[in-house]
Amino acid sequence: MEKLKRFGVSMNLELLRKFDDFIKKHKYKNRSEAIRDMIREKFVEEEWEKDRNVAGCIVIVYEHDVREIVDKIIDIQHKFSRNIISTQHIHMDKENCMEIVAVKGKVEKIKELYFYLKALKGVKYSAITKATTGKRIE
Amino acid sequence: MEKLKRFGVSMNLELLRKFDDFIKKHKYKNRSEAIRDMIREKFVEEEWEKDRNVAGCIVIVYEHDVREIVDKIIDIQHKFSRNIISTQHIHMDKENCMEIVAVKGKVEKIKELYFYLKALKGVKYSAITKATTGKRIE
Amino acid sequence: MEKLKRFGVSMNLELLRKFDDFIKKHKYKNRSEAIRDMIREKFVEEEWEKDRNVAGCIVIVYEHDVREIVDKIIDIQHKFSRNIISTQHIHMDKENCMEIVAVKGKVEKIKELYFYLKALKGVKYSAITKATTGKRIE
Amino acid sequence: MEKLKRFGVSMNLELLRKFDDFIKKHKYKNRSEAIRDMIREKFVEEEWEKDRNVAGCIVIVYEHDVREIVDKIIDIQHKFSRNIISTQHIHMDKENCMEIVAVKGKVEKIKELYFYLKALKGVKYSAITKATTGKRIE
Repeated sequence: MEKLKRFGVSMNLELLRKFDDFIKKHKYKNRSEAIRDMIREKFVEEEWEKDRNVAGCIVIVYEHDVREIVDKIIDIQHKFSRNIISTQHIHMDKENCMEIVAVKGKVEKIKELYFYLKALKGVKYSAITKATTGKRIE
Repeated sequence: MEKLKRFGVSMNLELLRKFDDFIKKHKYKNRSEAIRDMIREKFVEEEWEKDRNVAGCIVIVYEHDVREIVDKIIDIQHKFSRNIISTQHIHMDKENCMEIVAVKGKVEKIKELYFYLKALKGVKYSAITKATTGKRIE
Repeated sequence: MEKLKRFGVSMNLELLRKFDDFIKKHKYKNRSEAIRDMIREKFVEEEWEKDRNVAGCIVIVYEHDVREIVDKIIDIQHKFSRNIISTQHIHMDKENCMEIVAVKGKVEKIKELYFYLKALKGVKYSAITKATTGKRIE
Repeated sequence: MEKLKRFGVSMNLELLRKFDDFIKKHKYKNRSEAIRDMIREKFVEEEWEKDRNVAGCIVIVYEHDVREIVDKIIDIQHKFSRNIISTQHIHMDKENCMEIVAVKGKVEKIKELYFYLKALKGVKYSAITKATTGKRIE
């Protein structure tokens, strides 16, 4: 079992009241949960800055009837098969697809994959979501 | 077929040279592709600011052995079934899971779902990726 | 005098150790200071999202010898005199100037001023810094 | 005189129409100006990622009557005198001050200065604005 530690935080009354409103709005159960969440957010930012082993996803929105786009996407993904965990494909409407690629590995490598997908003709939009393997964040 | 228009852009030589380096690094086929991409990025930002119908995904990383966390995640997702397209689940290691929830709908609603998932005890990290349905972005 | 309140936060040992490293790196005196800072950051983000009365600054970098640019900057600033507190001008080198405009008021108005300055021919770069009047953040 | 080059960009009609709306809203004179601006934004992001010589500003909002805060701010600023170009001070209200510190130099050094100021007791909020010396961005 993991060891819990408890420590005290001081805050003036007015800031604390606003913090409690924030907690309510953001559905946190208690102050500790909210504080732990803010701390872990800072760590994930740092993991990505330092080219650590990270996890996350790449989202692309594209028109499937652009010539050869599906083949090109598959080709690129195969070249980065070590960094791709799995893929989720959504038919948004008659023309548009959204594909969410779960990725892991070194930041540099993931960014390279992202650039390749982003630059394809027919890819209208792309984004990268920074997350974490969870390993260094208890 | 969609109608293509062509227009001229002027730029001093040095900026253009750097832009061409940027294009190469980012794997774009040509300047038009890179410019269209930058323009569409601005539009997706605006869609999210204006509470339009958007699409995207929510990523959560959590420890699956925290009491009742899996049940709670399912409960929340069912309440937002209209906004959830599909879910992709990844076993990162013995303790950590990553779940990627493809979402669509109004920005406000998606953020509410995000807050509920983010606030759960056992969810170590969460992030929201802003993307687009592709509809208003040709 | 302001009233201080103290409350307990629980965290597992490993997260706490990493938090203490973070505190050291970021020069915080103690955990409370770091936690208060993270909380206030969230509030300032919300102030800007909700079009509250805010404060901040607009930075522009421009080439002073572009035709009429200095006149145009002054014209625009006069139109927004209610939102401009003061201006700091730096001669970066023979060609480039940096001007930092301290601003306050409604978010919408500040963004409008920002767009006007950003769009000027000769302005190479511009950025807006979100800060706060400090009033709602104790 | 600097050498201007002109090149063609192709875009489908609908995207172009939306781009023209964007240009109007953002007060740009013409498409070239808007496109050059988007390109230069990408370059400044990269300058900051690569620890180049940059310029920008640090904004702090603080309560001036917190014990010794003014002395501490001055001490820190003196230690970083090489990176500080000038300082602009604004009395926001009876309690709150905003100070805008124009900075230049290596990214790492500027961040260190930022951390020191940010961590001070009495500093309620702080932000860093990434800008550029303008040198590598024509």
